[in-house]
Amino acid sequence: MPEKRGKLIVVSGPSGAGKSTVIQKLMERRSDLCFSVSATTRDPREGEVQGKDYFFVSHEAFDEMVERGELLEHATYVKNCYGTPRNYVEQRRAEGLHVLLDIEVQGAAQVRAKVSDAVTVFVIPPSLEVLRQRLHDRGTDSELVIQERLERARAEYVEAAFYDYIVVNDDADAAAKELDAIITSACCRFEDRKEYLKIH
Amino acid sequence: MPEKRGKLIVVSGPSGAGKSTVIQKLMERRSDLCFSVSATTRDPREGEVQGKDYFFVSHEAFDEMVERGELLEHATYVKNCYGTPRNYVEQRRAEGLHVLLDIEVQGAAQVRAKVSDAVTVFVIPPSLEVLRQRLHDRGTDSELVIQERLERARAEYVEAAFYDYIVVNDDADAAAKELDAIITSACCRFEDRKEYLKIH
Repeated sequence: MPEKRGKLIVVSGPSGAGKSTVIQKLMERRSDLCFSVSATTRDPREGEVQGKDYFFVSHEAFDEMVERGELLEHATYVKNCYGTPRNYVEQRRAEGLHVLLDIEVQGAAQVRAKVSDAVTVFVIPPSLEVLRQRLHDRGTDSELVIQERLERARAEYVEAAFYDYIVVNDDADAAAKELDAIITSACCRFEDRKEYLKIH
Repeated sequence: MPEKRGKLIVVSGPSGAGKSTVIQKLMERRSDLCFSVSATTRDPREGEVQGKDYFFVSHEAFDEMVERGELLEHATYVKNCYGTPRNYVEQRRAEGLHVLLDIEVQGAAQVRAKVSDAVTVFVIPPSLEVLRQRLHDRGTDSELVIQERLERARAEYVEAAFYDYIVVNDDADAAAKELDAIITSACCRFEDRKEYLKIH
C-alpha cells in the first residue's frame, strides 16, 4: 500500500462567521486531524505548555526561524510575533495526520506560496447582512466597531478568490460536514492515489 | 441565495472493481443524486419504460442526435448505439440534482471535452492482484477471460490519469463515503460559491 501523508488545511474567514465553532465540530468528526502549534515571542500564560500550546521562543530565535525559512507564515500582533513552524507541520503530516491552520488571509497567502498542495477553505456567513445581525445580536461591539468589522470582512472577501473552497456557515453542523468532505475528497485526488495505478 | 445547480459526476473503472455496488451504496446516501437516462437504438425489453429506463430511438434518430451534438458521449455495443442526451442531463442539473454517469474511459473522455465542470472519478480495486483474485473467486470466467480482463484493466489504468479523483474500493461502504464526500466538496468549490461573496 502507498504510504498516506496528511493534508495541510488552511481555514480563514471574517470575524463573526462562526469559524471557531465549525472547526471545533470538525475536530469532533475526525480523529486524524490536529491543530498546528505556533511559535510565538509572547510570554507563556499560566497553564500553557511549551510545545503543546505554543513553541515559546525569544525574538532573536524567532527572527532566525524567519531567516532560515523555517516558518510557513508569520505575523506580528501587539508587538508579539506568531508563526507556523514548517518542521512541526511536516512531522505531523508524515505521521499521516491532517494539520489545520486557522489563520488570516495574509498568512494563508504565505502558506499557499510555500505549500503547493495546501487545501484552502474560506468560511463565510450566509451574507454580510447576516454577519451584521450576528455581530449586533451578540451585543459586545459598538455600532462603530461593527461597521469596522464589516469593512474588514469586505476587504477579506476579495482575497477569498484565492481559496480552493468556500464554506457558507448557515448551520455549524452542516458547515463542519462540508469541511470534513473537503478533507476526505482531497485525499482522493489523482495525485495522491496514483501509486495505486502501478500495473506491475 | 444563489441558485444551486447540480453536478455531473462521471464514474469509470475496470470490470471487477465493484463499481456497481459502490454506486448503489452512494445512491442510498444521497437523495439529490440521480442516474442519467441513455438514448439507445436497441429494442425495449419487457418492462422497460421509455424515458425512464432508456430513450428508445431509431438508428436514424440516433444519428441525428449525434450530428446535432445532442449527446455528451456515445458508443456502439453489439451493433446497438448508446449515448447520453445532453438535454436530459442539463434539465436534471438545472433542477439542482446531481447526475451520475457510469461509463467507460472512452465515453468519459468525450464528456470531459464537452462539460468543463464534470467531476470525474475512477474506481479501482486495491491492486491488480486483488482484482485477479476477485475475478478468480467469483468463478464465472475462465483463466483466459480473467487474463483478458486484467489486460483491459491495465489499458484503462493509463486513462485514469485524466480523472480528478481515484477511489480505491477496498471496502464498498468506505468507497461510497468517499464518492459522497467528492460530490459534497465539489459543491463547495470557489467557482460554485462566489456568488455568496458579493459585498453589496
